[in-house]
Amino acid sequence: MIDTFGDMSSLKCFFEPKTVAVIGASSTIGKIGNVIFQNFAMGHHFKGKAYPVNPRLDEILGIKCSASVKDIPDEIDLAVIAIPAKFVPQVMQECGEKGVKCVIVISAGFSEIGGEGTLLEQEIIQITKKFHMRLIGPNCIGVFDANTNVDTIFLPVVRMSRPKLGQIAIVSQSGAFMSSLLDWTAAEGLGLSKAISIGNKADVDESDMFQYLSEDPLTKVITAYVESIKNGNKFIQITKRITKQKPIIIMKAGRTKGGASAAASHTGALAVSDEVIDAIFKQVGLIRVENSEQMLDLANALAFQPSTKEGGDRILVVTNGGGAGVMAVDKLEKLGLNVPALSKDLQNQLMQHYPPYCVVHNPVDLSGDTDAERYRIALELGLQSNEVDAALVILLFQTPSLEIEAVEVVQNAQRFKKPIVVACVGGELAAVFSRKLEKFDIPVYPIPERAAFAMWGLVQYGKWLHHVE
Amino acid sequence: MIDTFGDMSSLKCFFEPKTVAVIGASSTIGKIGNVIFQNFAMGHHFKGKAYPVNPRLDEILGIKCSASVKDIPDEIDLAVIAIPAKFVPQVMQECGEKGVKCVIVISAGFSEIGGEGTLLEQEIIQITKKFHMRLIGPNCIGVFDANTNVDTIFLPVVRMSRPKLGQIAIVSQSGAFMSSLLDWTAAEGLGLSKAISIGNKADVDESDMFQYLSEDPLTKVITAYVESIKNGNKFIQITKRITKQKPIIIMKAGRTKGGASAAASHTGALAVSDEVIDAIFKQVGLIRVENSEQMLDLANALAFQPSTKEGGDRILVVTNGGGAGVMAVDKLEKLGLNVPALSKDLQNQLMQHYPPYCVVHNPVDLSGDTDAERYRIALELGLQSNEVDAALVILLFQTPSLEIEAVEVVQNAQRFKKPIVVACVGGELAAVFSRKLEKFDIPVYPIPERAAFAMWGLVQYGKWLHHVE
Repeated sequence: MIDTFGDMSSLKCFFEPKTVAVIGASSTIGKIGNVIFQNFAMGHHFKGKAYPVNPRLDEILGIKCSASVKDIPDEIDLAVIAIPAKFVPQVMQECGEKGVKCVIVISAGFSEIGGEGTLLEQEIIQITKKFHMRLIGPNCIGVFDANTNVDTIFLPVVRMSRPKLGQIAIVSQSGAFMSSLLDWTAAEGLGLSKAISIGNKADVDESDMFQYLSEDPLTKVITAYVESIKNGNKFIQITKRITKQKPIIIMKAGRTKGGASAAASHTGALAVSDEVIDAIFKQVGLIRVENSEQMLDLANALAFQPSTKEGGDRILVVTNGGGAGVMAVDKLEKLGLNVPALSKDLQNQLMQHYPPYCVVHNPVDLSGDTDAERYRIALELGLQSNEVDAALVILLFQTPSLEIEAVEVVQNAQRFKKPIVVACVGGELAAVFSRKLEKFDIPVYPIPERAAFAMWGLVQYGKWLHHVE
Repeated sequence: MIDTFGDMSSLKCFFEPKTVAVIGASSTIGKIGNVIFQNFAMGHHFKGKAYPVNPRLDEILGIKCSASVKDIPDEIDLAVIAIPAKFVPQVMQECGEKGVKCVIVISAGFSEIGGEGTLLEQEIIQITKKFHMRLIGPNCIGVFDANTNVDTIFLPVVRMSRPKLGQIAIVSQSGAFMSSLLDWTAAEGLGLSKAISIGNKADVDESDMFQYLSEDPLTKVITAYVESIKNGNKFIQITKRITKQKPIIIMKAGRTKGGASAAASHTGALAVSDEVIDAIFKQVGLIRVENSEQMLDLANALAFQPSTKEGGDRILVVTNGGGAGVMAVDKLEKLGLNVPALSKDLQNQLMQHYPPYCVVHNPVDLSGDTDAERYRIALELGLQSNEVDAALVILLFQTPSLEIEAVEVVQNAQRFKKPIVVACVGGELAAVFSRKLEKFDIPVYPIPERAAFAMWGLVQYGKWLHHVE
């Protein structure tokens, strides 16, 4: 509803504020205003200055508390507002008068409840416009920036772990779901650059965030969970341009009738036919996924591996378990990728190094007694040939002769600049070896089919970049 | 190729042998014949007696080694053979003469390599028939029984952890894949009753195993990975009957052209159109899954929760995150299940206990500030009504007021005898609370969509049991 000012510098203070006012800061452990203020004042090494605002308190955590944002003896870049909805307009008016640049309204009770809430939301939009501020929310959990440590999430660390710095950004229309995603990525060791809960999108919407993130040097892959698209034309214009620079993986909920109706209750999302959405996403190069597992699986691949050159889709499958190889091929072909038979010449080259019971047709089945060396030969001869564009490697570390050297072999095979994903099925040992592989930027998946899906994403994005359809 | 003798008692010695001969036992740490003999002699508390057979050794682990199975001064119920393929017929002849009842041939180099291997396999089939023995394999890893501790898997525990005793059985045509599944279930804490790698199925095939497991009181759910069906008519007759007693979850690989061709290289599986397979599976009540994650997800649900009464498919969704609720509904409806709007009457009853911003249409969105009590009310009023047949509960433990009591609430809701599955998205805390839920036999999934899929399995099996299509 508010025009984007074209350049994205107006959004910078959400992520790199020098000064932050937490309005509704509290000294009661566990309260929303307490957690948020703690995040800035002591929790996560935020480099800027944080000021608590609460008319009923003198100090919080030893820091002088102001009765109003206007009383703070400093300029304020970012105000985080966590007070009952009905008081928000007044406080935003004060922010405007103070010259605050960016405001995050955590409070709920706006358009998502309809009636009076919708009027309140109109009111804060007017104030935002009038003072040329930018607004994230209302009804959101705001911003998490793993680099600057801006963290407006009101869930204490004991409830929700914070992920490490990485190259994946998350934009989410659902605050609760974003918090569980952050907790999850933290446990998985998957790094994030930024996460933004956009809530009711009264001002800043998904398109704005995509544009900002496209210019963010720390973000390599953008992921998004949305229930509605705020401004269709703007969305199409912006995403079409951005996806040529960075992949956007999107999860659009409300696919079914019931899902759409639930989304309408949740965020007031209007129903648009899912086929239309699908067609638009395809047209602008968005990679659509069906659930958050797929979203993180693809993000992990696109963050660390190149997409296939010129959108090639010929996949080499190397395995030490025949069954797992079949599963990978089934899934790859179901997704429209190719698992071409290797040339007789290449097969002969491979068999010079292998015992006769190995099968080198593709999948290359190195058999249960393989060591890392057989993998090295398959990957080197395979990837340096012009017969395949990428490799899906299955490592079942239960077998007796496969040692940790296999990790180095896969790492070295990255020099051919063709994407590699790994499937490592198993338990504790598989987990240990998977972490080692991930240290070398190799994405690892717990079953062959998820590795195949990740490979699909790398091919898909390669096709989009190279105009192959 | 060998007729089934009708009753399954002939297979009992694979799982409950009093005496076992390990032919090809070795004293060299890590060798196949060493690991298998260790499993029986010291590893896993096998209750029977184990005898090593190796003409070149006097003793292994302090136990006297015989030159031939015929020299063992005891009757032998089960012989496990791990010697080069070409020596197997001679040794099996000796087993027959000794009166051995069951034989597991671990060795590879039979029909899977064609030519001479196929002839060798014919030979051991003849010997099996002649002496009325039963044979598992060749080219397999044999049997793991979590109750009797029969364990012929040649992978040491440091490579492959053994799962605890539970109610799920696994039948697998792929040995390597079975070993990674066992390792995985061990790490996940999912218990198994038995796991059988059937290899080339020269005698005992998937149908025999299904029948044996259907009569096994410790097995509640049968899961299977197959690349081919050995005897179509037998398979149909047996599964049709068994599925009325116990669910069979099946993963049939080789769905695509490439997958089928890879399966042919792996186990010589003949290609049958996947549509035909699908139709047959449906006709006999098999629940087909696409990957091992789905297989274990469904097995976990069917092992611990009842299927829906009379195959009812009306699902109550209770959540503390709107987005996660939408995801669950999307997936449930996509799978053909119902998420019916609750009656006005029930909605009113619920709202008497809830703050006005809760949404009770279905999904019931208890909002981010919910405690366990709101869950209790939703589950009790919902499940005791006749409006729903089952509940999918989403617990995002990141939110501030949701304590461990929620686990007890879900546990208590089981008294309504309607199936319940839970989705718990997150990291460390979610994992801890998930384990607690699992202690009360409540299956927990890491994303709403996987919980929805598990619910689909419970409905599907309910429909099959009650002749609803």
